[in-house]
Amino acid sequence: MSRAESGHGFAPIGVVRSCFGEKFGIPRQPGLVPEAEAVVELFPPHDRAEAVEGLDGFSHVWLVFVFHGVPGPSRGLRVRPPRLGGNRRLGVFASRSMFRPNPIGLSAVRLEQVEIREGRARLRVSGVDLLDGTPILDIKPYLPYADSIPEARAGYAPAAPQAMLSVSFSPQAAAVLGARQDGEKLRRLIDAVVGLDPRPAYRAEEARRRVYGMRLCDLVVRWTLDDAGACVLQLSQVDPSGLNGAGRTTSPDSV
Amino acid sequence: MSRAESGHGFAPIGVVRSCFGEKFGIPRQPGLVPEAEAVVELFPPHDRAEAVEGLDGFSHVWLVFVFHGVPGPSRGLRVRPPRLGGNRRLGVFASRSMFRPNPIGLSAVRLEQVEIREGRARLRVSGVDLLDGTPILDIKPYLPYADSIPEARAGYAPAAPQAMLSVSFSPQAAAVLGARQDGEKLRRLIDAVVGLDPRPAYRAEEARRRVYGMRLCDLVVRWTLDDAGACVLQLSQVDPSGLNGAGRTTSPDSV
Repeated sequence: MSRAESGHGFAPIGVVRSCFGEKFGIPRQPGLVPEAEAVVELFPPHDRAEAVEGLDGFSHVWLVFVFHGVPGPSRGLRVRPPRLGGNRRLGVFASRSMFRPNPIGLSAVRLEQVEIREGRARLRVSGVDLLDGTPILDIKPYLPYADSIPEARAGYAPAAPQAMLSVSFSPQAAAVLGARQDGEKLRRLIDAVVGLDPRPAYRAEEARRRVYGMRLCDLVVRWTLDDAGACVLQLSQVDPSGLNGAGRTTSPDSV
Repeated sequence: MSRAESGHGFAPIGVVRSCFGEKFGIPRQPGLVPEAEAVVELFPPHDRAEAVEGLDGFSHVWLVFVFHGVPGPSRGLRVRPPRLGGNRRLGVFASRSMFRPNPIGLSAVRLEQVEIREGRARLRVSGVDLLDGTPILDIKPYLPYADSIPEARAGYAPAAPQAMLSVSFSPQAAAVLGARQDGEKLRRLIDAVVGLDPRPAYRAEEARRRVYGMRLCDLVVRWTLDDAGACVLQLSQVDPSGLNGAGRTTSPDSV
């Protein structure tokens, strides 16, 4: 019985440019936040128009990617899926966790546009759950007759998590949005992302009034929770030097 | 702009043991032949029961695999999808061809059983389109809320290819099947695989009475086409030494 355990090497064919600047706050599966847009930049020679010829006939594509910001292969055979509150452990192959023996991810995303500029192709996609800078190994057309199994039974994750929180905006946050051309689009994105309540389930009972933060596009978004839902307190520019780390100092994983 | 072009190395976590002993004849997508069964053997330490704990709650899984029997990364940016008759070329990222820059494949298959024997786990799956010996990089639960997009628009491949040929069996073939305990199951498998007409579309106009052959499980299946459909002429044992190559001498790609 041959074992075929020798390794396989793959070089990225492109990279994701997304609004998600850090892991905290990213929707846990694709499609949950249609407002989450991204660009797949292709590396030469894969950026030539002929490599994507015919792709514009498809509404969705698979992105096969390497989980970004994960140190490497995970040796653990069990993980704690956030859907189970982070307390119960399950087999790594029964989960979509990024901590896996081979940290390869799959996302079905909507293909908004195949853009050809000066002979170079890139893809505009939406519904992404991918960190900015995620390396892309492959792009495949979504084939509903082979890939869509609506009747599939899905253990502990039978349905999409619904946005649980109504989201309001402080006067400062509303003013920042009002002053931007993309303000309404950003408002919808923040509403969707914060409304999904990205806190790990085991933290959901933490004290109210705690301030959470994440980087989203060029902004640091800070919000808190009260009996009415979530309130976005402050929107501030990400320091392009990356030195202020404002999002990180208030994110649950680093406080 | 960072390029992240450094390579990523992945070691298989398992291997597929399937009824498909050669590429010719394999259904072109998963799910087309529910009768096509396979076993995913996991390599240590991934074969420990804890790695698949909770997976039995799912009816389907994704197999992320390396296309087997493909010499390596493909440099071509365009391919000839069989669905288009093999004459029209399309971008490699608009196709599910095995000839890709990173020869990684995705198949959603039915999970029939999670088998634990003497503490070692393996998966019984069906609806496979995978060559025997295919290296598996990852197994993920199928999540219909994220993975199933029945309304997706799929360019040149909007629907599954239908079995086009009615399949009959010669007295010799019927006798071989009749003498086996798994004869009825094998008959259904041969019926489904041959009925899909695995010939490349550009060969469909070739002269009738040509004999096609493929290895399926432990058999070499030989069939021909006539006005009534396909007729399975002969079933013979694969020479375990692999020296007779009976299937290959009559397959369209090698004649």
